[in-house]
Amino acid sequence: MPDRRYDVLGIGNAIVDIIARCDDAFIRHHGLDKGHMHLVDAGRSAQIYRDMGATIEASGGSAANTIAGVASLGGRGAYFGKIADDAFGKIFRHDIHSLGIDFGSLPVAPGGPPTATSMILVTPDGERTMNTHLGACVLLDEADVDQAKVAAASITYLEGYLFDRPAARRAFRLAAKYAHAAGRKVALTLSDGFCVDRHRAEFLDLIRGSIDIVLANTAEIMSLYQITDFAEACQRMAADAPLAAVTRGAAGSLIISGTQRLEVAPEPVPRVIDATGAGDLYAAGFLFGVARGAPLATCGVLASLAAAEAISHIGPRPQSELAKLAAARGVGIASVHQGR
Amino acid sequence: MPDRRYDVLGIGNAIVDIIARCDDAFIRHHGLDKGHMHLVDAGRSAQIYRDMGATIEASGGSAANTIAGVASLGGRGAYFGKIADDAFGKIFRHDIHSLGIDFGSLPVAPGGPPTATSMILVTPDGERTMNTHLGACVLLDEADVDQAKVAAASITYLEGYLFDRPAARRAFRLAAKYAHAAGRKVALTLSDGFCVDRHRAEFLDLIRGSIDIVLANTAEIMSLYQITDFAEACQRMAADAPLAAVTRGAAGSLIISGTQRLEVAPEPVPRVIDATGAGDLYAAGFLFGVARGAPLATCGVLASLAAAEAISHIGPRPQSELAKLAAARGVGIASVHQGR
Repeated sequence: MPDRRYDVLGIGNAIVDIIARCDDAFIRHHGLDKGHMHLVDAGRSAQIYRDMGATIEASGGSAANTIAGVASLGGRGAYFGKIADDAFGKIFRHDIHSLGIDFGSLPVAPGGPPTATSMILVTPDGERTMNTHLGACVLLDEADVDQAKVAAASITYLEGYLFDRPAARRAFRLAAKYAHAAGRKVALTLSDGFCVDRHRAEFLDLIRGSIDIVLANTAEIMSLYQITDFAEACQRMAADAPLAAVTRGAAGSLIISGTQRLEVAPEPVPRVIDATGAGDLYAAGFLFGVARGAPLATCGVLASLAAAEAISHIGPRPQSELAKLAAARGVGIASVHQGR
Repeated sequence: MPDRRYDVLGIGNAIVDIIARCDDAFIRHHGLDKGHMHLVDAGRSAQIYRDMGATIEASGGSAANTIAGVASLGGRGAYFGKIADDAFGKIFRHDIHSLGIDFGSLPVAPGGPPTATSMILVTPDGERTMNTHLGACVLLDEADVDQAKVAAASITYLEGYLFDRPAARRAFRLAAKYAHAAGRKVALTLSDGFCVDRHRAEFLDLIRGSIDIVLANTAEIMSLYQITDFAEACQRMAADAPLAAVTRGAAGSLIISGTQRLEVAPEPVPRVIDATGAGDLYAAGFLFGVARGAPLATCGVLASLAAAEAISHIGPRPQSELAKLAAARGVGIASVHQGR
């Protein structure tokens, strides 16, 4: 078996976030569903941008944020995602490379679609509502899946958002096949309640056949099984996947493994400034812990503290070194088993 | 006399900030002077960017930040500055327009230099070190000075950084001439200690001949008069300008008007996250108060609370509505004289 060069390899939509604060009336006026991700075309994207307040730009993309979190925790990451060779593409590439993450996906050819952007509206409660124009992301396909890198990653992590495009879905399944052929694990995040609604049957089929670790929030797991009883949804999840972690907002999270249920307390934060990246960073802490063979309770603590850092500022990626925060909480990389 | 359509009109370098955290060793390794602004060419800019950590992008530019602050306080602002019609130029224009600021400067012609960027390195102490590639800014000249707008602004505010380019210096003097012809006030910030060093004689000449309000920090005023006694420097400033405000970091600031010395306490902040924009936002509060005819003590409070907001997060412009913060402190727009 080749050396495990990476703790986590992420595959996802490579996006630059364009973030502004707004009030709830703005969300209603634009007919948006608060807290969700909306796919928008270039015209709608431009319309929302025109009406938005002053912005901050930062590299984003769900799985890319997770890999950034893994790197910030001291882990080794790799990423597949499609950018264009434009200003936002250069920002995305710079930021992911600056974290020491292996990112070699070729940009789309000149004249192709632009690097994806997500107009993110942050309401006073800290909740974020996203409007994503996929641009270059739509060109990610099986050719972007580098088998050697997948085989060298302890965990290959797939973003549910990729299910919105058939070519990406095929890339997704190919990566899972390569990972399992190399004896590695495959993780999936359900990404968004609406995304689950759009692809429920395929998600269930994939989870039952190919997924070792599921990341989800309460709304997503309820939507997946179309039931309103949380305990029952967890029961179903336990039957479908060997390991799952379900985030519950301010109530913390629940780790599910067979008959085991491990409640994880949230890490306290003075105020939620911007929820963007909370789930992505939870996944970073959890998957880094699992990749290093840490006990599930430790994985939960790593997940919670990474999520807490993400929501305490504007922007989806860590602004403090998570490895230091983890060390201060007694769950630093030195105390996590180096599972090679 | 025409209607005062604007409280403050700013003229400055239109810049998009590219911000990353770094340690002190990075600053030393790159031979930078901590806390200062360095002018860099395209090659040096690219070199620093390559070595920088993960970034956040946000509209910046000293005078533009100040006008953004005036708008956030509920004031009416206008701005002259040169951008290119590229991705960063579009961000700059969007952000300034989204605040309701009048910004009509024509972009440079296609094929010209790119929109200016400043690579800003934030050390753990919150101090920022800037590396500015002026790009399109170098093309700002007298043709960009719209006389009617200058005449309609209570205060025209000039950025010392403009003195690094002869064409901008001429634009600067022309704006001051137009403002005084309309019976308006002209304000100047000294911008940076090194900038003062480069242009000491011209700054003194301009202040004595054309400036009504000077904004500076301790290092800049000492550099201007080449003396080490702060009280003496203030004495000289009082002789040269009718009104000045000098920021002193954690010690607050001092307002100087003739023989009057008004000490202003700093607004407490839990921790300095990023000092970028502190001086610019201090100027916003101060000039907004002066434009509305508020007592100097009120101008000082407005200045301090705007500066405190700026340093409590990454990025140079307000992320909370300053008008609300001011109202909560009893110095909201309703309590400030509407000097029309």
